[in-house]
Amino acid sequence: MRIGVIGVGHGRFGRRSDATVQELAFEAYRLALEDAAIEPDAIDASVVAAVPEYHKQRSVAGVVQEYLNLNPRPTWLTEVACASGSAAIRTAWMAIASGLHEVVLVVGCQKMTELETAEILALMGRVGEVQWESVFGTTFPSYYAMFANRHMHLYGTTRDNLLEVAVKNHHYGALNPKAMFRKEITLDKARASDSVASPLCVYDCCANADGAACLVLAAEHRVNNRDRVVWLDGVGAASSSMSVLRRPDLVGLPSAEEAAAQAYRQARVTAAEVRVAEVHDCFTIAEIMAYEDLGFCAKGQGGAYINERRSYIGGEVAVNVDGGLKAKGHPIGATGVSMATEIVTQLRGDAGERQAPGADIGLTHNVGGIGQYSFVHLFRRD
Amino acid sequence: MRIGVIGVGHGRFGRRSDATVQELAFEAYRLALEDAAIEPDAIDASVVAAVPEYHKQRSVAGVVQEYLNLNPRPTWLTEVACASGSAAIRTAWMAIASGLHEVVLVVGCQKMTELETAEILALMGRVGEVQWESVFGTTFPSYYAMFANRHMHLYGTTRDNLLEVAVKNHHYGALNPKAMFRKEITLDKARASDSVASPLCVYDCCANADGAACLVLAAEHRVNNRDRVVWLDGVGAASSSMSVLRRPDLVGLPSAEEAAAQAYRQARVTAAEVRVAEVHDCFTIAEIMAYEDLGFCAKGQGGAYINERRSYIGGEVAVNVDGGLKAKGHPIGATGVSMATEIVTQLRGDAGERQAPGADIGLTHNVGGIGQYSFVHLFRRD
Repeated sequence: MRIGVIGVGHGRFGRRSDATVQELAFEAYRLALEDAAIEPDAIDASVVAAVPEYHKQRSVAGVVQEYLNLNPRPTWLTEVACASGSAAIRTAWMAIASGLHEVVLVVGCQKMTELETAEILALMGRVGEVQWESVFGTTFPSYYAMFANRHMHLYGTTRDNLLEVAVKNHHYGALNPKAMFRKEITLDKARASDSVASPLCVYDCCANADGAACLVLAAEHRVNNRDRVVWLDGVGAASSSMSVLRRPDLVGLPSAEEAAAQAYRQARVTAAEVRVAEVHDCFTIAEIMAYEDLGFCAKGQGGAYINERRSYIGGEVAVNVDGGLKAKGHPIGATGVSMATEIVTQLRGDAGERQAPGADIGLTHNVGGIGQYSFVHLFRRD
Repeated sequence: MRIGVIGVGHGRFGRRSDATVQELAFEAYRLALEDAAIEPDAIDASVVAAVPEYHKQRSVAGVVQEYLNLNPRPTWLTEVACASGSAAIRTAWMAIASGLHEVVLVVGCQKMTELETAEILALMGRVGEVQWESVFGTTFPSYYAMFANRHMHLYGTTRDNLLEVAVKNHHYGALNPKAMFRKEITLDKARASDSVASPLCVYDCCANADGAACLVLAAEHRVNNRDRVVWLDGVGAASSSMSVLRRPDLVGLPSAEEAAAQAYRQARVTAAEVRVAEVHDCFTIAEIMAYEDLGFCAKGQGGAYINERRSYIGGEVAVNVDGGLKAKGHPIGATGVSMATEIVTQLRGDAGERQAPGADIGLTHNVGGIGQYSFVHLFRRD
């Protein structure tokens, strides 16, 4: 049986002091229902993605389910740090493929800006290994700075290559009305930004945000519009050690390579066939490693890949043409679902100014923590 | 396709300052592997249940997966407050029934005693509705005290009926080497305990604990021992409003009734056929409501049900004969998995001193929060 995406909805990402987490969820849900052209009664269950510890309101699945008026249908939450949204999508896929449910709503939602940046950094540090690593002061920027330094050392990747990722993603983010930062940046401006963790500077880092996105997944026989459905044909997932010190190297994420291999195999697709991709650019180096881990280019060639604009529309794979985490913002529970909404929109040809022409196969690459979790999903328009 | 439990493992519950959360997980995992008579290579994926916010270490699935040496296999976490363990089991069921995986490990694990009781109560309050309820000071004991008062008012349930649940569960807990409290209590002793939230006193409340439990689930064709397998034939789940004020009444959990109806239907079993059950006795009133919500007796008859010892071994359904949350302890992420290990042990006839004779059909009833989530699972020994 194939599982199809029949509806997508995406709220505005950014500092959303105007809305609670359940209100953010509702904003995306309403759009997804309308897009799917179904009534709420058609929904059998919901899977909610969020990292609860950033919210004053815990039990996020419960508060969202009530606010969407979906009681007494089952709901549950998946959490794998920044990949929570993709874990929810994969779980919904399983719920349908198992025959237990036929139409499942996926809600990715997150409020982060209730907390100060320092509090968020401290909480995120605890998403690293606490006993042996974060206790010594590692934070997410410092982990990714190590990845960047090693990549630069081994492969000659330059600081400009990193920032070229930011320039691309801001370029496309400016075209996305739901993005947090809708402004182009120049390489000069990026170069001049303050250092965060050398070599990463402000423009290498995505921003904490609030926001929500929704998908409606349906069993093949419940797909109501064959002209608009996008099939979710591959749901790959893998893990790597929390301890970065136990990794074989620091220039890629083994979990992402493995998840990609699974998804390509399941969907019977090769990397060369992917036309549009959303990859997890929490830091610019992460997008460069993603090009390599996903097989878009060979190991060590990621710097050249962005430099030669092969990940722009018109290149080999249009990557993060919604702005990516960098320009769109990264409300961690929502991100994986947001990625999927963009791929569906692209494959339908509905992406307007940022449309990648002729895209029929799309991919999402969503990483949790510092690569202890990766999810790679493949979408296809028949 | 049927899904079978081929292995169970249960660590000691209690104040476990001797172990980190991943060490607790390993303690149960080792027993589950041995019980299943499989090698780690046989495991395709793991689903981890925990409520991360009680731990210094977040990203619990990742740290557990590394410590169990299961990288690069996929892992992800499910969270629905105190029902997280059952959500993980239901997710693992779906993972297998969908054909994505064949053998899935479920790990329920929780460290709670790193925090002070007051901190835990405050965190738990935020599992209630924050905007309209917990902000006014509601806590879990006070919610369940409202349920108890209403049940007593409408049906004549007595304070002694509540405490009779505690007496039973302590009686059986004394027989369970993994339980936190291994001592009988008398009704007189229970009556004399301090008030927590009237009418609930200390002996009406379960205790925060640390601990872990594991299950190994397998697709029918991967069941390696037909004589010991226990089939998971029904996985019901439902939700109710977070806001207790929006519930139709305060004398039962609509989500539990709905989840039970689903599970009975899926497993083609009636309440009258259930011989052994693990129900969510976070407070004594919760067990009394469970008798009614599960159809063991009519609405309002729960007080008489315990008073007449119909939930003892030798009665109609042997309920919480491992001590329940009350005597065994309630490490919230582990509880649902712990319930399932007890039912499997009972259905195999391996429960020793606390064995319910002739049990072939067993049930778990696991509630999240104040009933915003309920999961009811049905197990059968052929």
